[in-house]
Amino acid sequence: MKPYPQLDNNALKNEFELVKSQYSTYADLHLSLDLTRGKPSSEQVNLSNSIMNCASDDGFIIDRIDVRNYGVLGGLPSIRALFADVLGVDASQIFIGGNASLQLMYDVISKAYTHGLLHSVQPWSKEKTIKFLCPCPGYDRHFNLSLSFGMELIPIDLTPEGPSIEQIEKHMSDPSVKGIWCVPKFSNPDGITYSKRTCEALASLQPAAPDFTIIWDNAYCIHSIYKDEPLPNMLSICQDYGCPDRVYMFMSTSKITYAGSGLALFATSENNLEYYKRLAAYQTIGYSKINEYMHLRFLKDKANLLAHMQKHAEILRPKFDAVLTALDKNISPLNIATWRRPNGGYFVSFYAMPHTASRIVELCRLVGLKLTPAGATYPYSNDPLDSNIRIAPSYPTLKEVEQAMDVLCICVRYAALEKMLESV
Amino acid sequence: MKPYPQLDNNALKNEFELVKSQYSTYADLHLSLDLTRGKPSSEQVNLSNSIMNCASDDGFIIDRIDVRNYGVLGGLPSIRALFADVLGVDASQIFIGGNASLQLMYDVISKAYTHGLLHSVQPWSKEKTIKFLCPCPGYDRHFNLSLSFGMELIPIDLTPEGPSIEQIEKHMSDPSVKGIWCVPKFSNPDGITYSKRTCEALASLQPAAPDFTIIWDNAYCIHSIYKDEPLPNMLSICQDYGCPDRVYMFMSTSKITYAGSGLALFATSENNLEYYKRLAAYQTIGYSKINEYMHLRFLKDKANLLAHMQKHAEILRPKFDAVLTALDKNISPLNIATWRRPNGGYFVSFYAMPHTASRIVELCRLVGLKLTPAGATYPYSNDPLDSNIRIAPSYPTLKEVEQAMDVLCICVRYAALEKMLESV
Repeated sequence: MKPYPQLDNNALKNEFELVKSQYSTYADLHLSLDLTRGKPSSEQVNLSNSIMNCASDDGFIIDRIDVRNYGVLGGLPSIRALFADVLGVDASQIFIGGNASLQLMYDVISKAYTHGLLHSVQPWSKEKTIKFLCPCPGYDRHFNLSLSFGMELIPIDLTPEGPSIEQIEKHMSDPSVKGIWCVPKFSNPDGITYSKRTCEALASLQPAAPDFTIIWDNAYCIHSIYKDEPLPNMLSICQDYGCPDRVYMFMSTSKITYAGSGLALFATSENNLEYYKRLAAYQTIGYSKINEYMHLRFLKDKANLLAHMQKHAEILRPKFDAVLTALDKNISPLNIATWRRPNGGYFVSFYAMPHTASRIVELCRLVGLKLTPAGATYPYSNDPLDSNIRIAPSYPTLKEVEQAMDVLCICVRYAALEKMLESV
Repeated sequence: MKPYPQLDNNALKNEFELVKSQYSTYADLHLSLDLTRGKPSSEQVNLSNSIMNCASDDGFIIDRIDVRNYGVLGGLPSIRALFADVLGVDASQIFIGGNASLQLMYDVISKAYTHGLLHSVQPWSKEKTIKFLCPCPGYDRHFNLSLSFGMELIPIDLTPEGPSIEQIEKHMSDPSVKGIWCVPKFSNPDGITYSKRTCEALASLQPAAPDFTIIWDNAYCIHSIYKDEPLPNMLSICQDYGCPDRVYMFMSTSKITYAGSGLALFATSENNLEYYKRLAAYQTIGYSKINEYMHLRFLKDKANLLAHMQKHAEILRPKFDAVLTALDKNISPLNIATWRRPNGGYFVSFYAMPHTASRIVELCRLVGLKLTPAGATYPYSNDPLDSNIRIAPSYPTLKEVEQAMDVLCICVRYAALEKMLESV
């Protein structure tokens, strides 16, 4: 196959007829395929089924605390110690709460609005405008959470080392810029891991807002598939750079044990934590210690947890292989798209020929393949190039992934040819 | 024993010497007793230990949903149906989320501040003043939650039928009065259950605030000890009275299964629920379905749940008997205090001679008996008569309750005599 840009008009037309006829065969198959969400497969959740058995009635006492009764805001000491070990922080910097890190992030933002953060002059609800920096492509739920509070979102380009510091710095003089959303490791969807230089630059920023906050959503902290990519410890970097209260580092076990029934947590400075816990004490006596107990018994320690993650990687790897192989084989020779090769995380970030992503998603939908809406990875769903498509191969079976990629590749070619012929 | 009010000065002095000498014997015992919180005992949480075993790997499919994976905001249909049955509402009116109803109440109030409730003109954070009605004595955590948002609290007397409607009506013309805290059944601490007349009067109110909201904390909805007291269905009353969106009815299984690791939920109108879920969708993909699954398998249905509650009652009854017996025997003849005889709930509400409650709590503390701080059951911790003491006998053993009541009774007499002699 020749690269499309080298084809003349006639050759493009012939290729388009060929692709259209291939596409039409899919319509007859009544497919029901889905590459939309970063959701673990049944095989993956099966890995954790013994979490239900390890919680037998053997006393229920952890750290001299009966886990079946009230109390202990912020997590049992033992489970805080386990995740402190995973994140390379101190157990005194960990807050464990709820079943989803998104909820904890929401809570921090919500408290910023109702009460203010530690260094806020006033609650954010009293400010006329709140702006947040959004490295993109990024996670749609972050952007939508911000929008639900009426924030103004500022897109920041994501480079292979992390968000563009140059672009960020331009906004530092604006006191209404209150923070930045970061997925610093195996980022959603690009699979990028922030470099040390980027982390240090983020800690070096001189924001006008005294309560400028980095929401460090470390969702994929131990979720390598091919190769680990070490991430600097942002909490200690912030400490070293004299802004110890600038970052909240989030993670959860949703993609470690059970999705949506895991443990969520954040690590932050002792001062932030003390402030947060003072507010949270009005909200709850404590989060489920039974869930902490089950996780502690099942995960045991960091080494065991990392071994468990290898089993996830083994299940995910063939699916990521299938995505990359299909793209390499079917799209690479055509010079019409690019994509990233992630070492971990849950996505392959695909960049179609500009101004064709929406059309590709639509073409796929018509033959039974659901994709994340084009643009979803950008603030206001506005991908200026209409190019990025987030491919999430974790949930379907390997066979379904292969089939879905066949469909996707044909649709990518279809939309490219359509666009090229349109502009002839 | 003669009633103290009938004793002359000399007799009072003699009695005081006697009581003081009895009191001093407790100091030597180095007691460590605690009647502070409404916390289930180990024996009670033991009742639910099989909740851990019923969650074996038998497929994990409920309502065709894999409970181990993401999704289903608001609760599995089957578990919503179970609690709809318990509360006498429709499953479509139920939202299940988190491990503590206090958290859900906080969330509703917090969303009122950040986004407004369904009928709010604007978010409460934009209002100059927010006031909340507080029937008292009441639950300290309600009052403190309100205070943490900067609300102004308005005390409302609690009558044996519920809060004084006459007092409430005086505030209805004030648009900054946004709601009322209610514990409508076996109220904390008085053990009062609201009458039908009170419920209807609450639904008949004509508040100036269009978003006036009844926070109906039905914490003890099936928690009878001696005898059930039927509570009218406030949601349907509000519907009948043309204010269907006025009430959120909360409950949790914290005092049914495991304290702090139960299921929390609320029932409200479909319109309220739709509004709330639209906001909550930014906050979380869903709450722990594993916890819902475990509860569904364990609780099974309403009949089984009510039978389970009888086991709690059997454990609690001797402790409540001990409290009431001690008061009847040691305090009743003296005419210096009154108390309520609850049919359920977690407390005995004790009214000491005016202006002696703080002193009693202090005297108890000095000999090793912890009581809830005097005044805690009132907004701003201000019991105008300094009389109410909340006795929580659930957590200690029966022997400890008996011992604690001996101490308490002596301290009640001590403080009364001290006060009477002071005014001689």
